[in-house]
Amino acid sequence: MIERVGFVGLGAMGEAMARSLRKAGFGVTASVHRRRAALERLRPDGITEAADPAQLARDCDAIVICVPDAPDVEAVLFAPRGVATGARRGLLVIDMSTISPVASRRFGERLGELGVEFIDAPVSGGPARARDGTLTIMVGGSAASFARAEPVLRAMGRPHHLGPVGMGETVKLVNQIIIANVMIANVEGLVFAQRAGADLGTVREVLASATASNYLLAEWLPKTWLAGSFQGGFALDLLRKDLAAALDAARATNLPMPATGLAYQLYTTRSAEGDGALDYSAIAKAYEWNGDTAAASDGRQESGRQ
Amino acid sequence: MIERVGFVGLGAMGEAMARSLRKAGFGVTASVHRRRAALERLRPDGITEAADPAQLARDCDAIVICVPDAPDVEAVLFAPRGVATGARRGLLVIDMSTISPVASRRFGERLGELGVEFIDAPVSGGPARARDGTLTIMVGGSAASFARAEPVLRAMGRPHHLGPVGMGETVKLVNQIIIANVMIANVEGLVFAQRAGADLGTVREVLASATASNYLLAEWLPKTWLAGSFQGGFALDLLRKDLAAALDAARATNLPMPATGLAYQLYTTRSAEGDGALDYSAIAKAYEWNGDTAAASDGRQESGRQ
Repeated sequence: MIERVGFVGLGAMGEAMARSLRKAGFGVTASVHRRRAALERLRPDGITEAADPAQLARDCDAIVICVPDAPDVEAVLFAPRGVATGARRGLLVIDMSTISPVASRRFGERLGELGVEFIDAPVSGGPARARDGTLTIMVGGSAASFARAEPVLRAMGRPHHLGPVGMGETVKLVNQIIIANVMIANVEGLVFAQRAGADLGTVREVLASATASNYLLAEWLPKTWLAGSFQGGFALDLLRKDLAAALDAARATNLPMPATGLAYQLYTTRSAEGDGALDYSAIAKAYEWNGDTAAASDGRQESGRQ
Repeated sequence: MIERVGFVGLGAMGEAMARSLRKAGFGVTASVHRRRAALERLRPDGITEAADPAQLARDCDAIVICVPDAPDVEAVLFAPRGVATGARRGLLVIDMSTISPVASRRFGERLGELGVEFIDAPVSGGPARARDGTLTIMVGGSAASFARAEPVLRAMGRPHHLGPVGMGETVKLVNQIIIANVMIANVEGLVFAQRAGADLGTVREVLASATASNYLLAEWLPKTWLAGSFQGGFALDLLRKDLAAALDAARATNLPMPATGLAYQLYTTRSAEGDGALDYSAIAKAYEWNGDTAAASDGRQESGRQ
């Protein structure tokens, strides 16, 4: 039974998830590199510190990792003072980062050779649901590993066992493929309405009961773009990283994804404009900028037509 | 007060909507051109027939039009035996077709010159909600016309007054912009999952509680593509017509809609393959066909890499 959980990656999601674990009664120890401020916020809850991931591996029953990308996971696991250095047989590694399923399977194999169990368990829901402990958790791994991890995962949200190692990441990438395109769909639709003089609040309300209804329109945009703020939320550059992983995996099986390919290019353009750290609804800025120029030339065009 | 309603356009939506009007106690008379079979199905409910739209205009307090495109609406209104021929002052025309807002405003002006009131009131929800009388209805028109039309509209669903004539169509096009892109988003995501060996039923269930959650994934695809059937639903060619109207309106104000532009091209390719009459989830066929070829070459590529 898992009693002591090591945590690596106290970012916007990780900090809230570590707190949820502590609330659920687990002993939680974190190893921090850049996130010292987050650790200091967590200390009053009883979360302690370890020198490095190797130390976590020696002291804990399970290690939760929540970092941005596959190279970060690799460093946590296999760098000189990484998890592998301190690992004992039976240690359970739960990688909640969103990375390529191919990388996940590779990490699972390498840890397996050391007698360490591995599951991939990326999440969906954003910081608000991380704070509430109601994340959707997509899990790949053996049935036995899933059963061991389940109490830990339940402290953070609702886990779904989807198949062998890598399948959690695959389904998470499906989520990212969809949200990347749905965000752009909403933005193109709402800017179209705005240009025609419609009230966006009313449009949103009407569409909530129409076939266009979707979570991002109902819940995400009112807190980001439509609230005039791109802070918090989910960083556009992280979405780009996920889309790149999805497009790589699709390329390996000759799967065409024209809309997702275009979405990647549009988000990359926005990132190149310096907006990569903003919530990904900042893709709307591309349309607003064009809106201004168009508004200026619109009058001319209209009169030119009469 | 409106007691007798004329109806033109007994298609998949219109037949159900006419029946809802009759159920709500309105006297309903239809003028049919191609839809004689639908009229015969409606006769037992007490729906009667008029010779032409001009006759409807003479006999009814309001006329509901539900036809495919702007030229069809124009013919109903202004052809030799059209509504305008028989119209009296105070007649109310309710156009529930999905057409360009520019065309709507033009029809409203022309009818206004004859003393005929006009509102645009396109719907969202599909044939199932048309049968239940629970459509979402997006209305453009004066406050007075909306108030007169409201009991008629309430018999078919929930009306939302969004602004002057044309605004119902504008918001309906926003809905179509979004569903066209969300459908493709879902298809690219689900085909990606399928290719990785995931069970689509499980993926759908998990995504229902994730940020990718949307109406088409939850309600539409299980009855169409995922049920192995593209019958019923909403014809791909009608969606193309709506996208063309949206792209035209966007062009007039220099609004770029790159994703919607791509979506239009993808649906048009599918239509060119002969699938225009199928439900628009038939866009999935494009990906399945490529899937077969890719599966064949995939093995070679994988072994070439080892």
